[in-house]
Amino acid sequence: MKIYKGHLLFTPERTDFEVIENGYVAVENGRIVGVASQRADLDIADGELVDFGDRLLIPAMCDMHVHAPQYRNQGMSMDHELLTWLNTYTFPEEAKFADTAYAECIYSRFVRDLWRNGTMRSAVFATIHHESTRRLMRLFEAAGMGALVGKVDMDRNSPDALCETVDEAVTANESLIAEFSDPNGLVRPIITPRFIPSCTPPMLEACGRLAREHGLAVQSHLSENRAEIALVRELEPMSTCYGDAYNRYGLFGQTPTLMAHCVYSSDEEIALMSRQGVMAVHCPTSNLNIASGMSPVRKLLDRGVRVALGSDISGGHTLNMFRVMVYALQVSKQVSVVTGDKPLTLPEAFWCATKSAGTFFGQVGSFEPGYEFDALVIDDSDLNFDNYTLEQRLERFVYLGDDRHIAHRYCRGQEIKL
Amino acid sequence: MKIYKGHLLFTPERTDFEVIENGYVAVENGRIVGVASQRADLDIADGELVDFGDRLLIPAMCDMHVHAPQYRNQGMSMDHELLTWLNTYTFPEEAKFADTAYAECIYSRFVRDLWRNGTMRSAVFATIHHESTRRLMRLFEAAGMGALVGKVDMDRNSPDALCETVDEAVTANESLIAEFSDPNGLVRPIITPRFIPSCTPPMLEACGRLAREHGLAVQSHLSENRAEIALVRELEPMSTCYGDAYNRYGLFGQTPTLMAHCVYSSDEEIALMSRQGVMAVHCPTSNLNIASGMSPVRKLLDRGVRVALGSDISGGHTLNMFRVMVYALQVSKQVSVVTGDKPLTLPEAFWCATKSAGTFFGQVGSFEPGYEFDALVIDDSDLNFDNYTLEQRLERFVYLGDDRHIAHRYCRGQEIKL
Repeated sequence: MKIYKGHLLFTPERTDFEVIENGYVAVENGRIVGVASQRADLDIADGELVDFGDRLLIPAMCDMHVHAPQYRNQGMSMDHELLTWLNTYTFPEEAKFADTAYAECIYSRFVRDLWRNGTMRSAVFATIHHESTRRLMRLFEAAGMGALVGKVDMDRNSPDALCETVDEAVTANESLIAEFSDPNGLVRPIITPRFIPSCTPPMLEACGRLAREHGLAVQSHLSENRAEIALVRELEPMSTCYGDAYNRYGLFGQTPTLMAHCVYSSDEEIALMSRQGVMAVHCPTSNLNIASGMSPVRKLLDRGVRVALGSDISGGHTLNMFRVMVYALQVSKQVSVVTGDKPLTLPEAFWCATKSAGTFFGQVGSFEPGYEFDALVIDDSDLNFDNYTLEQRLERFVYLGDDRHIAHRYCRGQEIKL
Repeated sequence: MKIYKGHLLFTPERTDFEVIENGYVAVENGRIVGVASQRADLDIADGELVDFGDRLLIPAMCDMHVHAPQYRNQGMSMDHELLTWLNTYTFPEEAKFADTAYAECIYSRFVRDLWRNGTMRSAVFATIHHESTRRLMRLFEAAGMGALVGKVDMDRNSPDALCETVDEAVTANESLIAEFSDPNGLVRPIITPRFIPSCTPPMLEACGRLAREHGLAVQSHLSENRAEIALVRELEPMSTCYGDAYNRYGLFGQTPTLMAHCVYSSDEEIALMSRQGVMAVHCPTSNLNIASGMSPVRKLLDRGVRVALGSDISGGHTLNMFRVMVYALQVSKQVSVVTGDKPLTLPEAFWCATKSAGTFFGQVGSFEPGYEFDALVIDDSDLNFDNYTLEQRLERFVYLGDDRHIAHRYCRGQEIKL
C-alpha cells in the first residue's frame, strides 16, 4: 500500500475539476483504494506515505490516435498538401518498417517521447509489418506503459510496399493476438484497418471477424476530409454514410471502437456513433496542419458521442497532450465563432484526454476508488510565482508547461522511469 | 571584427529560405559586413572566428505586439469570454502597475522570458503609468535587447484606475521621450493609444501630435472583432472605416505604424494600410484564444500590406515566436479551406517574424550586409537523429523545439546572457 499526497486535480465529471488541496490517494496493487482530503478519512491503517509537497497530482495522459512509424517525420513537410505529404513523405517512411532494426530505432525514440510528455496510455497505428509491430509492443511492455497497438491492415490504393494479402494480414494479426493474449496485459493488440479507401471488402470482413472472434477493440479513420468521404461513397455505394460502411463489416462499435477525426460526420453518422458507443478521437493539431477542417466536438458531445483526443503524429506535430488540449479548446472556440455552439472548456478537454479516453482501458484516467493509478506529478514552481489558485496553476501548466514540469510518471501504480 | 560560422538560414525574400551550409557572417560594430559560403569569399583579412559547428544560425525573433503587464496572467482564464477576461482579469492586473515595485518584479520576469524564447526585438504595450513604463525600458536597456515601449494612453470606457487626462498622458510621454532621446538607442518610446474605444478625440489628437512632433512610431489595435468595429463606427461616425479613424488623427502611417490583429479589415482599410505603409501584426494565438476569428494574412500580403507577427500576451498564451509561426501557418491553412487562398508557407511565416518585422527597427532580421547582427544559434542535435536537410532541421525546430534548443542569442552584435 502506498499513499500519495499532493494537490489533486481530476475530472470525475466532464464539466468541472475536482480539486483536493493537500489530498491523499491510497494505491494497492496498481489500483486506487481511497481518495481523501485528510489522512484520517482514508480509513487505512498503514501505508507508505509519498509526499509530493506543493506539487500537482493529476491523471496521466491518454493519446488515442497516433502513428508510431511517422515519428521520424514529426514536425516536417507541413507546407505540403495532403497527397504530396502522403505519397512523398508518409508512405515511403512507413515502408521502411519492413526493416526491424530501423523500426526498433525509431520506435524506441517514440516510446521514450510519449513517456517524456506524460502519456501513459495510447492507441497506436504501427505498419503492416508483423515483426516491427511486435517489437513496438515489446518496447511498450518493457517500459511498463499501456498501449493498444495495431498492425495496420491495407490492401488497395496504396504503394505496393504497403499492400498485403488478406491471408497475410490475418496470419500476422493472429500471431500477435496469440503472443499478447493476456486480457489484463498493459499492451494489447487492436484491429486496425487503415481506412476504407485502403482496404478491400474481403480485408474489412476479415478485420471484423478477427475483432469479433477475439473480442478485440478496433481503430480506424473516419470523415477526415471531404475528398475522402466522396471516395468512400464511390467505394461503398450501399452504405448510407462512411460510418455505416465500417458498420456493415462489424467495425463500428460491435467491439470497442476508436474512430479518428470525425470532422465532417453527418447527423446520421453521429447518431450511429452515439447509439453504438463508438469513440471519436479528436485530433485538432493534425486537422489544422493538414488543412482538414475543424471537428464540431461540442455537437458530438451534446449528441452523446464518447470523445477522446489524439496527437495524430505526424499529421499532428506534437506528442504533448496538454498542447493538444489547448488546440482542442482553440478549434472549439473558432467553431463557436461560426456556429454559436458553446466552446469546450478546460475541464472538458482534460476529461477527454483522461477519464473519457481512459474508459477504453477499463477504469483509467481519474482518481476514484477502483481506478488504476495512472498519474503525473507536476512541478510548476517556476510558473507559480504569484498567488494563483490550484485550478489556475493547472491551466498555466497546460498552456505554458512542457515535459520539464513533469517530475514523476505512474502507470498502473508503478513509477515509470526511462 | 568577428566571424561567425554555422549553417545559415534566413529569408532575404519572403518566399524562400536562403540556406548556406557551413557559412560565414562577418560582423563589425554590431552590423553585418559580409556573408559567404567560403571563408575566402568574405574578402576580410582578419577577424576572430566563432565556430558554431553543426548548429543552425538564424535571425533572432521580433515580437511586434505584446502586453508586458499582462505577463502574470499568461495562459490563464482562457475559458472566459472577452469582456469577462478584460474586466475581471486584465484591467485589474494592469491597474497594479501603479506600484513600481510590482512592475519591476513582473517586468523583470517578462524581459527574461522574451530573452529565453529568442526574441531580441519587440513592440510592447506597457500601462498608463509613467514610472513603471520607464522601469520596463530600463530593464530592456540593461538586458541589451531592442524594444519599442509604449506608455499606454487611454481616457474613456475603462476603469477609473486606468484613465488619465490628456495632459497627464502628454506629460508622461514627453518625459519618456526626453529620457530615451537617442534615435539610435536600442530602446525607444512608441506612441500607444490603446485603441479608439478607450481614447477620446482629444487624446487621439494629442497622440498624433506627439508622434508627428517627435518623429515617433505608433502602435494600436485594429479590427480585432466585430463588436469592437461596430463600437468604433458609433464613436467615429465620420470615419469610413476603423483604420480611417486613426488616419484622421495622424495615427495611420504618418509615422511608422503597427496595427495589431486586422482580422476583419475591409477592402478599403486594407488599401489604406497598403498605401500608407501601415504594418499589420498578426496574432494568431490570441485570435484563437479569445475567439476573435482568423486574419486573412494571404489577402493582406497579396495587397501589399506589410505583415509581422505578435504573441499578444496574454490574449496569446506563448511568448515563443516559433510557436506563433506554427499557429500563423495553421490559421492560414484553415482560412484556405474556406476561401481557397493559398496558405502561408514556413519561409513566409519566418520572414514575417524576422525580415518583415525587422524593417521597423531599421535593418534587422536578415543576414545581409548592412543589417544589424541579431541572431540565434540553434542546437537541434536531439531532433536531428536522421539525415534531415538543413531546411527540414529548421522546420522541425520551429514545430518541435523550445528554448532549450537556443544555445546563444545576439542582439546588435552583442551576445545577450541573462
